[in-house]
Amino acid sequence: MSHACRGFRFGAVSAGIKSSDALDLALLECDRTASAAAIFTRNRVKAAPVVLSRARLARAGGRARALVVNSGNANACTGRAGMRDAEHTTTLAAAALGLEPEQVLVASTGVIGHRLPMDRVEAGVPRAAAALRASGFDDFAAAILTTDKRAKVARRTVQLGHSRVTMLGCTKGAGMIAPNMATTLTFVVTDARVPPARLAPALHHAAAGTFNAISVDGDTSTNDMLLVLAGGAAGNGPLRGRASVRFQEALTDLLDELAHALMRDGEGVHHVVTIRVRGARTETTARQVARRVANSPLVKTAIAGGDPNWGRVLCAAGNAGVPLTAERLDLFFDRVQLVSRGVAVTDDRVEAQAAAVMAQPSYEIVLDLNRGSAEARYLACDLSHEYVSINADYRT
Amino acid sequence: MSHACRGFRFGAVSAGIKSSDALDLALLECDRTASAAAIFTRNRVKAAPVVLSRARLARAGGRARALVVNSGNANACTGRAGMRDAEHTTTLAAAALGLEPEQVLVASTGVIGHRLPMDRVEAGVPRAAAALRASGFDDFAAAILTTDKRAKVARRTVQLGHSRVTMLGCTKGAGMIAPNMATTLTFVVTDARVPPARLAPALHHAAAGTFNAISVDGDTSTNDMLLVLAGGAAGNGPLRGRASVRFQEALTDLLDELAHALMRDGEGVHHVVTIRVRGARTETTARQVARRVANSPLVKTAIAGGDPNWGRVLCAAGNAGVPLTAERLDLFFDRVQLVSRGVAVTDDRVEAQAAAVMAQPSYEIVLDLNRGSAEARYLACDLSHEYVSINADYRT
Repeated sequence: MSHACRGFRFGAVSAGIKSSDALDLALLECDRTASAAAIFTRNRVKAAPVVLSRARLARAGGRARALVVNSGNANACTGRAGMRDAEHTTTLAAAALGLEPEQVLVASTGVIGHRLPMDRVEAGVPRAAAALRASGFDDFAAAILTTDKRAKVARRTVQLGHSRVTMLGCTKGAGMIAPNMATTLTFVVTDARVPPARLAPALHHAAAGTFNAISVDGDTSTNDMLLVLAGGAAGNGPLRGRASVRFQEALTDLLDELAHALMRDGEGVHHVVTIRVRGARTETTARQVARRVANSPLVKTAIAGGDPNWGRVLCAAGNAGVPLTAERLDLFFDRVQLVSRGVAVTDDRVEAQAAAVMAQPSYEIVLDLNRGSAEARYLACDLSHEYVSINADYRT
Repeated sequence: MSHACRGFRFGAVSAGIKSSDALDLALLECDRTASAAAIFTRNRVKAAPVVLSRARLARAGGRARALVVNSGNANACTGRAGMRDAEHTTTLAAAALGLEPEQVLVASTGVIGHRLPMDRVEAGVPRAAAALRASGFDDFAAAILTTDKRAKVARRTVQLGHSRVTMLGCTKGAGMIAPNMATTLTFVVTDARVPPARLAPALHHAAAGTFNAISVDGDTSTNDMLLVLAGGAAGNGPLRGRASVRFQEALTDLLDELAHALMRDGEGVHHVVTIRVRGARTETTARQVARRVANSPLVKTAIAGGDPNWGRVLCAAGNAGVPLTAERLDLFFDRVQLVSRGVAVTDDRVEAQAAAVMAQPSYEIVLDLNRGSAEARYLACDLSHEYVSINADYRT
């Protein structure tokens, strides 16, 4: 079954931006002006499409009609010429769709430091526009991939009053695990009617525990973008009360599925581990500790090796820059307790149980600070030989 | 030639704390009360010997007579029993040397979460005391090792007025590169006469650009300790003017040599790279950017692969949380310029030159922010297959 979302059409072509003949140029159009909310990379080095799309979204007060995406070239570190290329790409899309360039957003992913091959973009955009169709989402999701092993698509439907609402999402790139600065691009379309002022907070809330809580190697790229477009064709009433809760839950749930798929698809990833820090004074400190543990190379190599080396978890937590009392720490791998009040409770039997937990493709590492009642989680993955091979040997 | 430093004696034995018959228990004694300054791990999870030694140094106003060190067991995450074990170890050393326990400091390194085998410590300490001799520094330096490939010793002499002063230092453990939370222990003895109030700032100044600016994987362990003891047997006059500068330079230079040796000795380390960030508004921001680049797994895998993937350096810098302007960034690998004002200047010839730079065992990555005149440097190393093997497969 092909995916669809009322009011949206999708098209993709192979424009020759990638060296292979894979799909590498995609268009997405809404039949009316959609509410739009986005989260962009916080990296201080931002690619041209990020700078341009962010400015346009701000000027339009969170509204857009279309999106053009290319893979194979990030258009980053390309200076003013790169900014002109990004603008020209949207002008080409606008012309093909009968829109104004200001209504079109743009995203790119791929190698950085190289100019976009604009002749190929010029030839490709009209063809992508000609390919637009309601059932084109899978092609769209395929065209944004770089070194991903497979397309990652998720779908949710939710009843909002009398209206059945659809959300379709796709994502690419496992953080920066893939070679050469692979970017996380995530796009969600929904036929829900949501004003821009409601869509932005819903996106930020949904991202907090999902895309903003995943870590492959702790870096964000020059091109990261998470965009939600709400067209409104479902004709639902105002998002109030239970409808508002349901919309939020569905969006969070959709992003959670995509975030997990993103992690699992990372090359060299065999384990996706939820780092849950609880008993913190505040959610902020809980998140800070969880992030530190999730990013620790020593924890990540232990995950890769299936080694219940609990000391590394405590050590990473102790490096988080957050007040904690070693004598209060409890540590569990799923339900296997390894540390009680800062003291190891391991013996051969416990270690064997913990090793069995770590053999699973996904499990939880739970660290209780026993200082309060706030908690947060972060998704971590293993740091494996494949990671090093992919990232050390990529261009050689 | 064996190393010596007037007023100090050193002894080491194999006490059976390690499973091998390698040296694992060491003593160091000064013939008088020495000035003592130390830098301890900032990890919130501190091993018992760190807690005990820090408290004793503070109570004594920066003075000590002796140090007992064991390898093979970190005495970390061992609760109150571990603290009693650390105290008892110093009591044993004090009894063997005719001192008060308060005059004795203690350090440990090795596996964490296991009690010290106190029967072996009890048998070993008197034997180590019996082995004390002026020429025992090399044995001492060997006894503190864990998975290090070789002992790392450095020596400086410096003329202070009419007195020739000696400094002897040794170090172990490459950050946390070695398996199971390997600790950085560094000990320096000198016969210089330096009051405690002068020794502490000299140590902190010397460490800022050396041991506090190295990164193997960004974590500090539960047991890290850097200790300087100044006995005063050289009888030099007050440290003023040129003598003060010379002492500072010699101490910094000694720590720099030890820090480089530490990095080079890390298992899986083939390249030690100086990350130099210049043109910053403040030294603090320069250091923050340099640290972020040095800790980036993507930069470190690029170093391992010899891949001039300059985009990763810019990307890591952009993630440092420091204001910077992408359009002002210049990037060099040694003298090969790869980025000019934020734009790639690479072609095949430049890439080949950069690859040649990266084939060297040590080189510089220079990032100019072009925003000010402050600079800082950080030492980085590669993230290699051996790193993953050592840390993923250690206990399996």
